[in-house]
Amino acid sequence: MRSIHIGMLGLGNVGQGVVRILTDNGAAICDRVAARPVITKVLVRDLDKARGGAVDPALLTTDAAQVLEDPDIRVVVELIGGIEPARSYVLQALEAGKHVVTANKALLAECGEELFAAAAERGLDIYFEGSVAGGIPVLRALREGLASDRIDQVVGIVNGTSNYILDAMTRTGVSYARALADAQAAGFAEADPTLDVEGGDAAHKLALLTLVSVGQRVDPRQIPTEGITRVRAFDIQAADALGCVLKSLAIGDFGDAGPVLRVHPTLVPRDHILAGVRGAYNAVVVRSRALGESMYYGKGAGMMPTGVAVVSDIIEVCRDIVALSEGDVAPGGFREVQAREPLALDALECENYLCVHVPNVPGVLGEVASCLGRHGVSIKHMNQDTPGEGEAIDMVIITERTAEHKVQAALAELDRSRASLEPTHRFRIFAPTPEQANI
Amino acid sequence: MRSIHIGMLGLGNVGQGVVRILTDNGAAICDRVAARPVITKVLVRDLDKARGGAVDPALLTTDAAQVLEDPDIRVVVELIGGIEPARSYVLQALEAGKHVVTANKALLAECGEELFAAAAERGLDIYFEGSVAGGIPVLRALREGLASDRIDQVVGIVNGTSNYILDAMTRTGVSYARALADAQAAGFAEADPTLDVEGGDAAHKLALLTLVSVGQRVDPRQIPTEGITRVRAFDIQAADALGCVLKSLAIGDFGDAGPVLRVHPTLVPRDHILAGVRGAYNAVVVRSRALGESMYYGKGAGMMPTGVAVVSDIIEVCRDIVALSEGDVAPGGFREVQAREPLALDALECENYLCVHVPNVPGVLGEVASCLGRHGVSIKHMNQDTPGEGEAIDMVIITERTAEHKVQAALAELDRSRASLEPTHRFRIFAPTPEQANI
Repeated sequence: MRSIHIGMLGLGNVGQGVVRILTDNGAAICDRVAARPVITKVLVRDLDKARGGAVDPALLTTDAAQVLEDPDIRVVVELIGGIEPARSYVLQALEAGKHVVTANKALLAECGEELFAAAAERGLDIYFEGSVAGGIPVLRALREGLASDRIDQVVGIVNGTSNYILDAMTRTGVSYARALADAQAAGFAEADPTLDVEGGDAAHKLALLTLVSVGQRVDPRQIPTEGITRVRAFDIQAADALGCVLKSLAIGDFGDAGPVLRVHPTLVPRDHILAGVRGAYNAVVVRSRALGESMYYGKGAGMMPTGVAVVSDIIEVCRDIVALSEGDVAPGGFREVQAREPLALDALECENYLCVHVPNVPGVLGEVASCLGRHGVSIKHMNQDTPGEGEAIDMVIITERTAEHKVQAALAELDRSRASLEPTHRFRIFAPTPEQANI
Repeated sequence: MRSIHIGMLGLGNVGQGVVRILTDNGAAICDRVAARPVITKVLVRDLDKARGGAVDPALLTTDAAQVLEDPDIRVVVELIGGIEPARSYVLQALEAGKHVVTANKALLAECGEELFAAAAERGLDIYFEGSVAGGIPVLRALREGLASDRIDQVVGIVNGTSNYILDAMTRTGVSYARALADAQAAGFAEADPTLDVEGGDAAHKLALLTLVSVGQRVDPRQIPTEGITRVRAFDIQAADALGCVLKSLAIGDFGDAGPVLRVHPTLVPRDHILAGVRGAYNAVVVRSRALGESMYYGKGAGMMPTGVAVVSDIIEVCRDIVALSEGDVAPGGFREVQAREPLALDALECENYLCVHVPNVPGVLGEVASCLGRHGVSIKHMNQDTPGEGEAIDMVIITERTAEHKVQAALAELDRSRASLEPTHRFRIFAPTPEQANI
């Protein structure tokens, strides 16, 4: 059986998972591929760092050229993360005629156009299943399983750290700060969690989901993104009383006018299937015209789950090499990709959860309601705890379905008025389609 | 752009869905494939039957040879269903060098060996995504997305009719007979529902899931199968009181000793993700060694959902034709398939729900408990409604985790004894793995 040489860039957490899966499942993988994928060189930063003996130390190198210029290496697996030097290495690999497998969502979301063009020019593969939702084969489902369908919407829980924190707050009632500290201690959040908790990571993934769903390239920095850092234990409890759980959702609507994309904390009705996605799990609900709703669910990160996605991509590249069909399927599945700007959210309609912080004085509800009313925001219901004398009130308001621009204008005025003591907490309420409501 | 000629066998519900998807999404499909799949002949039973103008009547024929012997047709899509004449037609198509797409689970589960061998001999593709869980790309997920992993277990809700009936009983409290009649009226159950409600259809699908998960071929007639026809409104209510919902599950455990397969109604804890699968929806939970739990969810049947799967398969065959890589991936993904007998369930352990129908006389609980005890079946808890004088009692017992052979021996003795007035209703309780419990 012929061997196919693989070069790896990086041997961190996911890299070690890749090595372990290729070792543990080697026989089955050779059977599937009709060839033997063999790791022959691994770029690392430090030769002496202990790595649990996963890789023969003779394969390690600190010189990228040893991987990128080795003529026997057919596939380069990039697991360094970040933009540079990953971008330069991937470009060099492609220029040298090597196929690329990566799980680097930031790189693909920000530099995908350049990398895909370089691959297409030379008839090379780039696979990136591990970049979205870890081991869940959702990109493959979109690219192949739903290749025949028209995707109308994706709704994803795609950041495991955010979901872990919100789930912990829901289960135990702790504050955001405490839940974050616990997540950091348990290894589910980075020391600097900004990219996760502010939604940037989810925006990268939403950009890739958009590419693979409808063949449209968007700049992830243009996606309206709101993090979970302002979510309070109070909001979680109030959501619970409304029959909802708070989830950070990445949502893409793919209408004819263009993609409407956003990442934000959202109240999800407790009987919706996304409400049951707990801990660090990820899930993506896809709504497509012929199939309707489908969902893909599993572990969204980690050494072994992301390793599964990367090795499945290695298998696919190796099959292409054996079949001499490399580069035949465009990255993302679309041969023609359009660059698009995400549309503004102005016209988007939904119900909203508002928590207005008002002084405990007579007439304040009237002031708040009048302000909302002036901007065309109708109140569906309102609830406020009776506080002690002189204490401020957390007034919870659920609005009727209202266009985004009206809500924003109303909140801008409200937060300037003396009726509001601090910026209003506002979360959108997820409105399942009639079909979704049926699930 | 080149055309690839497609011949269809059958133009029923799914067939019309296939035509509609190919028409509606034609441009996008051509872009993905770099070729134009064109339906050029369609075998029907009756030329005059109205079909909503989906297909140019000039393409219709009642002569199978017009499809099977047309040298320009590269791909035959079999949508007749059943074993014969579908089997003979598929063999003829393969002998004539044509690729095959089918959604016929009975045909593949019972005659797969013969058909796959005929395809392999000639380097041809057989794709069959539509045969399991309709449009949900679960076979693709197993064959490609998880190609790198070792699958330990699949647990599926794969028969939409059974799930629809059980869900209706759960939501409305009606009897099985009433729920079945409603499902028939709503088009979710056939006039003769046997294959669905007795579990035969789920057994076919479980055999195919086994093939694609671990490359093992089993005879679906050897899979222990129990239908939903004995489920009563009482059982559903009792399950609810225990925090569970009743679901018909198809379960495959793939240990080293061999596959342990079964289809039966099962109590699923309400907070497990499968409990939320409602109506005619399907879902398959896959447990694999590196990824852990993943789930694939969506509409399991119907014109458009199954049409999506069939057209996605047509796209894949066309891509293979364009890339000259036909037949390179074995059907199911394994080049070596082993024939296996499903293991007996004897050693399988689980908790059980028993409803024993006992006369309202003193000492009867002692008799029941003693009988169970003699066979090593311990009672975890017991509950009985206090009936009127002389009325029979529905005694609900939850057993501790017990091996199957002990439960069967105990029930055999119990149902022969005077303590039991009619055969005991017994349903297994789904035990999530420690990891599953965490979801």
